[in-house]
Amino acid sequence: MEHFDLTIIGTGSGNSIIDERYDDKKVAICEQSTFGGTCLNVGCIPTKMFVYAAEVAQNIREAGRYGVDAHLDGVRWSDIVSRVFGRIDPIAIGGEQYRRSTPNVTVFDSHTRFGATQPDGRYLLKTEAGDEFTSDKVVIAAGSRAMVPDAIAQCGVDFHTSDTIMRIPELPEHLVIVGGGFVAAEFAHVFSALGTRVTIVIRGGTLLTHCDDTICERFTDVASKKWEIRSHRTVVGAHRDGAQTVVELDDGSTLFCDTVLVATGRVPNGDLLDAHLAGVEVTDGGQVVVDEYQRTTARGIFALGDVSSDYQLKHVANHEARVVRHNLLQDWDDPNLVASDHRFVPSAVFTDPQIATVGLTENEARAKGYKVKSKVQDFGDVAYGWAMEDTTGIAKIIVDDDSGLILGAHIMGHQASSLLQPLVQAMTFGLGGQEMARGQYWIHPALPEVIENALLALCGEPPWPPSRRH
Amino acid sequence: MEHFDLTIIGTGSGNSIIDERYDDKKVAICEQSTFGGTCLNVGCIPTKMFVYAAEVAQNIREAGRYGVDAHLDGVRWSDIVSRVFGRIDPIAIGGEQYRRSTPNVTVFDSHTRFGATQPDGRYLLKTEAGDEFTSDKVVIAAGSRAMVPDAIAQCGVDFHTSDTIMRIPELPEHLVIVGGGFVAAEFAHVFSALGTRVTIVIRGGTLLTHCDDTICERFTDVASKKWEIRSHRTVVGAHRDGAQTVVELDDGSTLFCDTVLVATGRVPNGDLLDAHLAGVEVTDGGQVVVDEYQRTTARGIFALGDVSSDYQLKHVANHEARVVRHNLLQDWDDPNLVASDHRFVPSAVFTDPQIATVGLTENEARAKGYKVKSKVQDFGDVAYGWAMEDTTGIAKIIVDDDSGLILGAHIMGHQASSLLQPLVQAMTFGLGGQEMARGQYWIHPALPEVIENALLALCGEPPWPPSRRH
Repeated sequence: MEHFDLTIIGTGSGNSIIDERYDDKKVAICEQSTFGGTCLNVGCIPTKMFVYAAEVAQNIREAGRYGVDAHLDGVRWSDIVSRVFGRIDPIAIGGEQYRRSTPNVTVFDSHTRFGATQPDGRYLLKTEAGDEFTSDKVVIAAGSRAMVPDAIAQCGVDFHTSDTIMRIPELPEHLVIVGGGFVAAEFAHVFSALGTRVTIVIRGGTLLTHCDDTICERFTDVASKKWEIRSHRTVVGAHRDGAQTVVELDDGSTLFCDTVLVATGRVPNGDLLDAHLAGVEVTDGGQVVVDEYQRTTARGIFALGDVSSDYQLKHVANHEARVVRHNLLQDWDDPNLVASDHRFVPSAVFTDPQIATVGLTENEARAKGYKVKSKVQDFGDVAYGWAMEDTTGIAKIIVDDDSGLILGAHIMGHQASSLLQPLVQAMTFGLGGQEMARGQYWIHPALPEVIENALLALCGEPPWPPSRRH
Repeated sequence: MEHFDLTIIGTGSGNSIIDERYDDKKVAICEQSTFGGTCLNVGCIPTKMFVYAAEVAQNIREAGRYGVDAHLDGVRWSDIVSRVFGRIDPIAIGGEQYRRSTPNVTVFDSHTRFGATQPDGRYLLKTEAGDEFTSDKVVIAAGSRAMVPDAIAQCGVDFHTSDTIMRIPELPEHLVIVGGGFVAAEFAHVFSALGTRVTIVIRGGTLLTHCDDTICERFTDVASKKWEIRSHRTVVGAHRDGAQTVVELDDGSTLFCDTVLVATGRVPNGDLLDAHLAGVEVTDGGQVVVDEYQRTTARGIFALGDVSSDYQLKHVANHEARVVRHNLLQDWDDPNLVASDHRFVPSAVFTDPQIATVGLTENEARAKGYKVKSKVQDFGDVAYGWAMEDTTGIAKIIVDDDSGLILGAHIMGHQASSLLQPLVQAMTFGLGGQEMARGQYWIHPALPEVIENALLALCGEPPWPPSRRH
């Protein structure tokens, strides 16, 4: 039976592990789907390309506010699809070809599971295509998958998830989105801006419930003006009526539409690996259990990314991949193993308005016992916000009144994911709110002034200008 | 003769000096023009409002690239003007009314100069309206003005400067801009995006010569595809020919146009104050000489902003105003005076593409003897740049290879003024390039990744992930 020094299951962030330090190792890479993983193929990257086209369309509709009269003549959906995947697909193909041509790497392209560990301690792996091989070490980077509620999965009606919705042949007339998280919010923006009527069905009363309450409420308010939101409703089934899909809700009402997108969350793929056969603990939810060094409960087996992380974020998976890349080359119990750093993980939702967040929500900060001060600063209160005629953008910042440190930042509005970065940086490197506000220059009249002003409102002016004394 | 504890000449940043700590002081404020100064009335704020409308128009023209077909039907110039000044003018009027209603403040609304200092050491001030008063202390915050070359000023043909161009009654057909600095670059963008043909006359070969060479060259290249650039030319005169203005160049050629904008720089107003009568040294160029505490050469007289600064930037003037506000309340020779901090002053040009810069250019860094490493990172190499189909955006970062510190950053592209802020923050607080890149998370796939990638290309990956060790 063929034996490998290292096996990597999954080619998202997992694929980035092997660098020149692994040239003398024999490596197996297992990918049942497309090289590059969720982010490249069906996640972050293509969605943002659609989102940008949506922004262009939305801006045209709103141009009149700025004294510029314009008409949106039409949207060439198939051109957008071709542009996006014409760029992405070759990257995925090229990635696979590169790995197949790497002398010390063997690619297995069907689903791979663990078998019973060999008497000599080598891990056994079996592919759906019938290959069996052993490996000294394994990295589980098998990602996550879209979760579809049984009521929809079993009703026999066609539906889409984020895996397929970006490749549909034409723009829907009426899209029903089930779920109210970030995937729902991004696709609602994409399709409504491009001209589709959008209805969202959510179990609770608000969208983006993972966000700070202020963002969650304000966003839901903005969203409800553009999209029809059926709140406190669950989908109990669906059937076809001629050319239409009829979505059945738990209050007996129905929604007629031509396309359904299920965006009810993603679950880790740890349940599909028979990992227990190798001694790898997996939670009931399918998450591979890891410690701070990304070690699973089985010696020599690491995991990273969506399959083992509480964050379903590419930048977290990449960070964990760097940690694994280092730790894999150390002894399992080496005191110099590096720990993953999950202290200040930012994230963004590329919807409209864009949302970006880092750190604690106000509720979380209060629950942890901090002496919380928070400020909601309107974009419309700074000069660049005037220029944009902005009426909805806000930056909410939360500080610890005892230490002056920033506990969380939550931005909804233009450039939110860019405006957040100085706050991520301040939190990560321990820069206090007042020092951040007054210890550096902020370009006038650029949009980051909204952050400066929020911090000043929270932390006050320092007793004198914090300048150098000569 | 009326006597004041403090006189402030100019109501831009100067107007922000008097806070509650000055409630028991008798203050004179002198403003010959409109309250709020250059920034509010004819500078940063209105220009950005025009620039945003221009961006909206430009995006419509480029929408087809994203699969969105649109028509620009027209630009309502007078609506744009009304929107901008309908917002700004009331702020200026309100600012004046507020000061006039402040019990301890007297407003003098004509040009004010110094007279000969009184025998008792009190400074004498005289207004054009005939008022005379004395003051213990004076703050000179008289700003700067657009400079117009004699050849244009004296030829008898109407021309505009940034003071007037934003209030013209209709969009020009053909605008000739004299000069190639930031004012020229912003208005060229505004008017060309809104539909005006633009010709720029510059003495040298490139626009924005204050920028790093890479930015300067790339921007000039982009600009020359949109605007007609007459380089290595000087305007020697102008005359009327029917309804047209004919601009005469030094090579004998002429430019027919309907509107001329002179944007050949701004000069400080220190030459208009008879400041020598108070013992205030003023350079030949009209700049009031100050030390690092913003003290002029005359005891009790401070200066700030464009009239005394090498930077013609509102955020610098505001910083200096905070310094003066503090130092005014100390003794003249107090060892606790605060110095202005001009180490890391960012600036932006809101043209197309937008430009933002902080710190040294590559040439400056080499001239100072640093061991320079620099990297030009394309926006098009990060995922968000793909989404934008960006072909021109760059971030150039310069580090000191000995210390790893960032020496300068120069960005041309979307959101440049927002993307720059984390670099301003890193430079100000001494965060090294490698630590900045790998010590914090960067949202994927947001635009700040262009900064992360530039830093990684420059500084390399750290020896292992810079995570906490537990």
